Formats: sequence, structure tokens, C-alpha cells
Amino acid sequence: MALLFLSTPERGAVWKQVFAEAGEEIVIGADAVTDPAAITHILCWSPPGDLTLYPNLQAVICSGAGVDHIRPVPEGVALVRTLAPGIEGMVRDWVVMASLMLHRDMPAYLDQAGQGLWQEHPTRQARSRRVGIMGTGRIGRKVAETLRALDFPVLGYSRSGRPVEGLEVCGQDMLDTFLAQTDLLICLLPLTDETRGLMDAAFLAKLPKGALLVHAGRGAQLHLDALGAALDSGQIGAAMLDVTDPEPLPQDHWAWTHPKVVVTPHIGSVTDYEEGARHGLNVIRAGRAGEELPGLVDPARGY
Amino acid sequence: MALLFLSTPERGAVWKQVFAEAGEEIVIGADAVTDPAAITHILCWSPPGDLTLYPNLQAVICSGAGVDHIRPVPEGVALVRTLAPGIEGMVRDWVVMASLMLHRDMPAYLDQAGQGLWQEHPTRQARSRRVGIMGTGRIGRKVAETLRALDFPVLGYSRSGRPVEGLEVCGQDMLDTFLAQTDLLICLLPLTDETRGLMDAAFLAKLPKGALLVHAGRGAQLHLDALGAALDSGQIGAAMLDVTDPEPLPQDHWAWTHPKVVVTPHIGSVTDYEEGARHGLNVIRAGRAGEELPGLVDPARGY
Repeated sequence: MALLFLSTPERGAVWKQVFAEAGEEIVIGADAVTDPAAITHILCWSPPGDLTLYPNLQAVICSGAGVDHIRPVPEGVALVRTLAPGIEGMVRDWVVMASLMLHRDMPAYLDQAGQGLWQEHPTRQARSRRVGIMGTGRIGRKVAETLRALDFPVLGYSRSGRPVEGLEVCGQDMLDTFLAQTDLLICLLPLTDETRGLMDAAFLAKLPKGALLVHAGRGAQLHLDALGAALDSGQIGAAMLDVTDPEPLPQDHWAWTHPKVVVTPHIGSVTDYEEGARHGLNVIRAGRAGEELPGLVDPARGY
Repeated sequence: MALLFLSTPERGAVWKQVFAEAGEEIVIGADAVTDPAAITHILCWSPPGDLTLYPNLQAVICSGAGVDHIRPVPEGVALVRTLAPGIEGMVRDWVVMASLMLHRDMPAYLDQAGQGLWQEHPTRQARSRRVGIMGTGRIGRKVAETLRALDFPVLGYSRSGRPVEGLEVCGQDMLDTFLAQTDLLICLLPLTDETRGLMDAAFLAKLPKGALLVHAGRGAQLHLDALGAALDSGQIGAAMLDVTDPEPLPQDHWAWTHPKVVVTPHIGSVTDYEEGARHGLNVIRAGRAGEELPGLVDPARGY
């Protein structure tokens, strides 16, 4: 059994070393495959065209945390997303940074800096800024923990509404209530049929006037033009976007230079190469031991 | 006994209400003083010219956390700075935000956004970015706590080198060792004769090449032109400055538009009006009870 590695050479060098130290087989690049029947696992961002080339394929491991871009894998093959503490910590860091940047009016101060303008604005206390987190998975819970430690009141939202680690969570039927109480909205939802296009004009109108938006879910969940209109009307005060639709965001898109928006190029999660390789090993070993694969995607839920 | 309030009308309205509820006397504005002998406390950012007008003056309460801008007060009059959890939390929030912005390359991404450029840079894990905090007072300790929770290794620096709350702290004689181990330097020092001009070219050269700088101490501690040279040589990777010398920073100053610098207009600490008023009450009551005044400044240390 061997893992076929289909990603960048820099990442591949790290995987090769981790696999060598662990005594596991790895093949770097499809051209290097001599016996397709030996390939049991594939590591990739997006799988190659014909997976039936590999008759003994057990699992496709996506190098990212989200798998919405991956077409269905053949029956009997598991789809696994990468679980790495590094990913979770990195997205948490980006979201905490973005939340603080909006809380402390950084879009306005950045705009002023461009004009050389030294002018202070009134500041709110964190305890008076209610944060709502959509998506209460591993990353959402880390974000909640950090923002609560910074004195923000935090409420969660998830499809099920199941409370997690002391965090009050609104379920799907409470979405309007959740939004009405959210001064700073953080989206960390996975992209599914239910969340695609979720944040449109009607959705944004349910937030309190002047609410702030941190978007680190998936670009297709947010109508950028509805956001633009809400920013211009003052319904939304400012936004930090790490994901857009499309990606990359075209060079002449209005969002790049809007004074109330900061766009970053999907940098929330960049998997640490070594952590990714260790996750790959864990998937191989769990399969061998007959245990549930870490990061296994439920095709029905889509994440 | 009465407090003479010398600050903005917006702030004054809040103080008036808090003092009324507490049954304490407050006089808003020097023109409203009918009996100078009744004035026992003065609240101000910077005291008026002649404090001897008030023969029974006990304490001058500075509305900020730093008092370096205040000339000596008459003998027998206490100088007090404002201690408010709000100030500490706000500076902590700004410093955590600034640290994350540098850690996650925001100056570069902001520069790219101005050009509509979607391009990712390699990201370091927080655990590999060593943070050094100069100043281990109440704010420094809060910053250390938050950054440690985000997985950054944190080392402190203070004149005494006394460890605080589990934080390892280098003393004055260990400054070079401290700097050599610091990938991200945070300055929270008070302005004293010893810290004025501290961060010059020789100081910055002691940091590892490419180190990051978060400055939330006082402008006069940093030679801006030495920083400019260190940024251009790559010795310093990027900087976030909330304090500058002079303040306001002139509109045509190079730092406003340098692609590796973000300047904010001294917004780290903005005292919440009500918290400030409660601190004022605490000072009055402590004096009446013969207890040490909260926030009392030691004239020898200067803070």
C-alpha cells in the first residue's frame, strides 16, 4: 500500500521525509506510479480525473479543511479532509484578528492613513459588542473561546443548535433571533446546498444596523453585491473577507478598494506541511486498524 | 471637598451623573469654581497653569494611563493616573490585533489589496514566532496571557526582571539576550528618562533579522527614522505604530504610506467615561479613608 502525492514540490519534500521516517510508502506525482494497484491513498487538493485507474484506492485525502470543491469519489472510496491543529489555530488567528480589526475600526483608520489623517473615533468596549458565530465546529469553538476571553459576549449558530462547551447555540429555526442579536457576525460555515447563497440582501437586513461581518466560510455563501449595497446604505458597517466568489477576486473588483472592506486572498488556513503529512499517516493507520478515519467526510452532509 | 473636572463636555456629562448618584461634589470647568478652597481633586489630561490657586488640593487625577506629559505637581499634592479595566482591555485588544496583523502579514496583504492582487504568502505557525513584551505591568500581563493562549511563546522584559504570573522576564542587564530571542517585539513601556529614545538603530540591530515591531508605549521611545532605515534594509520586517513622535504624525510623514508600516492615531487606550468616573470616586474615597490612592504615581520612577 502506498500514498500517491499530488500537490506542490515544496509540500512533497516534507511529506516524503515524514513518510520515510514512519516507514510508509509514498509516491510523488502520478508519473512516478509504476503499479497503480499499489496506490491505496491519494493526497490532493482536487482529485485527478479518473480515480478508477487505482483499483485498490481506499481514501482520497483533501489537503484542505473544506471539501466542497471535490466531485463525488467512487463508491467504496472514503473522502477525508485534513484535520490539523495548525489549520484550526491559523483560521482562529485570522478570525480573531479580523474581529478585532472591525471592532477597533481598522478599515476607517486604514483609509485615514492613506490620507495621512490623524483622527480618533469613539471606541466601544468589547463587552458591549455581541459576537455571533455561524458554525460551531472545532474552529468556531476555538474562536468563541478566544473572543470570550477578550470579554466579547458570544452566541453560536449551527443547524442543530446543539450547545457546545458552554456556548449557547441557536439552531436553524432561530436564525432570525440570532441575527437580530449579532453586532459582529462571523461566518465559518461549510459550503453545502443549504449555505450556498445564504448571506443575501434579506439576510443582511436581519442584522442590527451597522453590524460588522467577518467572512471565513466559503465565498459562494455571500452575495458580494448585496454586501456592497448594505455597506453603502450603512446596514453593514464594515467587512473583512478572506473568501470571495469568485476566487481569485478579479483585480478590478470594487471590494478591493472599498473603504469599509478588507479582502485577504483566502489565507485563513494554510496547512502546515508537516502537520498535513502527520494527518496523512493517521488516516493510513486508522484504516489499517479498522478505526474511523480522522476527518472522514459524510457525503450526505457534505462536510 | 469637590472634584474640579477639566475635560470634554461629553465626558463631563457622564462624570456628573456618576458623582451625583454617589453623592459626591463635582464642579465642571474652572469658570464654575466659586470657592477654590473647596477643590480637593482635579481631573484633567494635563493640569492647568497654577495649581496653587487651590489651597486644599489633594490630588491631580490624569484622565489617561500615562502621565509623562504632566509637569511636576506641587509638593503635598498626589499625582494619580487612571486605572480602568477598560483601558487595560482596550490596549490589550489593540496590541493583540496589531500582533496578529504582523504575524499574518497584513501590511503586505493591505498593500496587495490596493493593487487588487490575490497572492498568498507562506504562513508561520504562532508557536514558532517568539514574542517579547517590554513592560510587564497590568497591560503587558494581559497581552502575555492572550498571546500565550494563541500559542505564541512569550518572554517579558522589565527593568527589575521580576517574573510575573508565570511569565519569564528578563531584567535590564539581559536586554541584549531578550532582543536576540524576539521575533515580534511589543513595546508597552512607560516614558521615563531611561526609555526615552530607547529604540534607536543600535537597539533595532539587536533583534533577529526581519523582526516585527508593535509599538504601543510612547512615541518618544522610538526613532522613526531609524525604524525607516531598518525597514528598508530588511532588519525590521514590518511595524504597527499606535504612538509616534511627534503626535499627531504630520500628514506628509513617510510612515503613513510605507508599505510595511500601519499607523493608528493613538487609539490603543480610550478611557470609557463611566469607568474613568468610577476611578475618580475610588481615588476620593481612598484618600478619605487614609488608604493608598489607586493609580498613585511614584515621582521618582515617573509612572
